[in-house]
Amino acid sequence: MSRHKSTPSSITLRPIGHVRTAAADADIPRLRRTLESEIIIDEACAPALEGIEHWSHLFVLFYMHKVDDRARMKLQTHPRGREDIPLQGVFAARGRDRPNPIGLAVVELLGREGTRLRVRRLDAYDGTPVLDIKPYDSDDVFTDLRLPDWWTQLKQR
Amino acid sequence: MSRHKSTPSSITLRPIGHVRTAAADADIPRLRRTLESEIIIDEACAPALEGIEHWSHLFVLFYMHKVDDRARMKLQTHPRGREDIPLQGVFAARGRDRPNPIGLAVVELLGREGTRLRVRRLDAYDGTPVLDIKPYDSDDVFTDLRLPDWWTQLKQR
Repeated sequence: MSRHKSTPSSITLRPIGHVRTAAADADIPRLRRTLESEIIIDEACAPALEGIEHWSHLFVLFYMHKVDDRARMKLQTHPRGREDIPLQGVFAARGRDRPNPIGLAVVELLGREGTRLRVRRLDAYDGTPVLDIKPYDSDDVFTDLRLPDWWTQLKQR
Repeated sequence: MSRHKSTPSSITLRPIGHVRTAAADADIPRLRRTLESEIIIDEACAPALEGIEHWSHLFVLFYMHKVDDRARMKLQTHPRGREDIPLQGVFAARGRDRPNPIGLAVVELLGREGTRLRVRRLDAYDGTPVLDIKPYDSDDVFTDLRLPDWWTQLKQR
């Protein structure tokens, strides 16, 4: 049987910087919308920031380094630990435990001083390695979304 | 001098599936908005798809495996190869060449048959390893964006 194999079978990435926040890990989900953090980009990557201040919003991709190997094997979850919500696949929810624990946040860029970006809405813990930053554009905006009932109900509380 | 070090210094990820498209690599940027592709999730990850069909739009994170080590060292770029646009940092543009070549697309989920997701707007080449899938939510929508002039001008053509 011939089957297409993904190439390569494992992928190595290196952090381009890290997150700095005074907030405690446990408070971050609750504070998320107003939380201000810093992203400290490694000096070696400084030229990659050229022009970034002309964008108001950025995607930040980060490595959720506190997700351990056991949590990476979890394929289904009760969202937010709520056992009254039926089990969902980890690709159908936004929880941290997933096979490749890459975090994704859309943040507001508040300011830049050299290799330090001041941002709002980054739900990453202090010390989190940052993998990539991409500008957020009007092409990333989609409306008329279909959302699961459990999610709509969670958000209405 | 004490300096916060990102931990860990290198990160290993494994594909959870791969992209299938009939489109040639070179045609994908032009076709992007209407392009239909398939994401084939590895059987081992099948339970992680539970409930995904209740979301209309998904973030797909993929590994741009054709970006070679030399291209990963590029920190600035003329967007779309246009030398009339001033050099931009790779974190201030959406090109493929970047230190960690993780692709990010918002796709429309057209259908699911088992471990195969039919999607629209995925600008990934045939055979691209997929790293993660996350639902796209109304919280990911931002308006009143500030965009650089070079980008606004490119989009008006």
